[in-house]
Amino acid sequence: MRPIGIFDSGIGGLTVARAIADRLPHVPIVYFGDTEHLPYGEKSPELIRQYASGIATHLKERGCQAIVVACNSASSNALDSIQSAVGPGVPVIDVLQPVVNAVSLRFSRTNVGVIGTRATIESGGYQRMLEERGCQVTALATPLLAAAIEEGFHEGLVSEALLQAYLGQGTFDDVSALILGCTHYPLIAEQIAAFLPNSVEIINSAELVAEALANATGLYSKHEDLEIQRGTPVLRQFLVSDLTVSFAQSAQRFFGEEVQLEESDLWSQ
Amino acid sequence: MRPIGIFDSGIGGLTVARAIADRLPHVPIVYFGDTEHLPYGEKSPELIRQYASGIATHLKERGCQAIVVACNSASSNALDSIQSAVGPGVPVIDVLQPVVNAVSLRFSRTNVGVIGTRATIESGGYQRMLEERGCQVTALATPLLAAAIEEGFHEGLVSEALLQAYLGQGTFDDVSALILGCTHYPLIAEQIAAFLPNSVEIINSAELVAEALANATGLYSKHEDLEIQRGTPVLRQFLVSDLTVSFAQSAQRFFGEEVQLEESDLWSQ
Repeated sequence: MRPIGIFDSGIGGLTVARAIADRLPHVPIVYFGDTEHLPYGEKSPELIRQYASGIATHLKERGCQAIVVACNSASSNALDSIQSAVGPGVPVIDVLQPVVNAVSLRFSRTNVGVIGTRATIESGGYQRMLEERGCQVTALATPLLAAAIEEGFHEGLVSEALLQAYLGQGTFDDVSALILGCTHYPLIAEQIAAFLPNSVEIINSAELVAEALANATGLYSKHEDLEIQRGTPVLRQFLVSDLTVSFAQSAQRFFGEEVQLEESDLWSQ
Repeated sequence: MRPIGIFDSGIGGLTVARAIADRLPHVPIVYFGDTEHLPYGEKSPELIRQYASGIATHLKERGCQAIVVACNSASSNALDSIQSAVGPGVPVIDVLQPVVNAVSLRFSRTNVGVIGTRATIESGGYQRMLEERGCQVTALATPLLAAAIEEGFHEGLVSEALLQAYLGQGTFDDVSALILGCTHYPLIAEQIAAFLPNSVEIINSAELVAEALANATGLYSKHEDLEIQRGTPVLRQFLVSDLTVSFAQSAQRFFGEEVQLEESDLWSQ
């Protein structure tokens, strides 16, 4: 079976890869973390488009049947470039559309909050798509959160201080739901919830994206498939553009099981 | 007069540029912040060498008479590559050597502390050079500090929580001096000092580097020069490889006066 290609600027996309591996355990995965250019969230749209379309092309050349853009900064700024780069035959699943679909159905005509990197929020992607579906939107860039989580500072004093700085002014006190618009944020979902009224629902995109992928590709995990697959290891390949020890350690923690990282020379070709 | 070229992965090197502009106010400056590849501190040595020698070559081609590597990660990992790239005719001043010279004279045979990015500490540069001069060394990587400062979180709860995580275990309680081995750290020098015994002296490299530059080039600011220059603006050019609004704002705050940023297409050539 041809693999699913998943990419992010670094580690955050592994929360999406985890959800895909849980939803479609029989499907091989090739993950690409662009650690050489991490973080995307502070980069210009032009640069994000250049990196993202290069990676998508590379994943297509490796035989991937579909591409998951497991990075909000790339989904918000580079989706057209990515789809052009891989052509119409390869479905591209981004992290915004599945979330907007689900949220606009469930929280129609309410005020919906979204937090993300500077590149994601400044692109206006979530705001435009949600407003088109009749929601009001309160958006805030929370730039250092992803880097802090990438460094292992989640559910501690550092992420607490950052959340106090970003959320402590009550910006999201009257929203119905808060979209975690960065694939790193699920790691501090509980801490984020503590800064919000109990009525606010926290929206984590990983499972919604895995579901959208299953729909777009027609791949579903069936009970029989799982029986057949039991004991047969599925190919899961993890590529990074710059291999460092700390990334190798974090990857394991984020994906929730052992991960063998390989360095890819994509950018030096 | 030919300019001095100064570079860093981003904003931190502006603390060094500020000290150089104060020490040699009559000398033109070309500053290059490699914001496209920021932060260097988490990158591999090979990648840091590739970026740093590319920038140094570019600054030489712009006519710079000397190159200041205002970045500890590049100074620790790429000094040979930089000097090879620009050739013997252009002096290269790094941020380690002037600090090691000063510290090993003043704190000879004592235990000296150093904090910096992962790339700086893992290179072992400070440790090796200080030990050769008879100091003991206690070194610790404090990776998220530079990013937090770059984001404007200095002298507040966030840097406090980070310092608590990095310095709160008393690692540096018996050092005579602590070297701020990252050009961002002077912005939180007071907060760092509060986590250390009063006896520990904090070493900020910026002025030591400016002095080393004056010595290496024979450039000194003389009273007469200053009188001549009064009212004549000196060229100070600030280039970045990826221009974003937030960087433009921070640059001004860090350099302490208005800064006109220009985007350079160095990496797309």
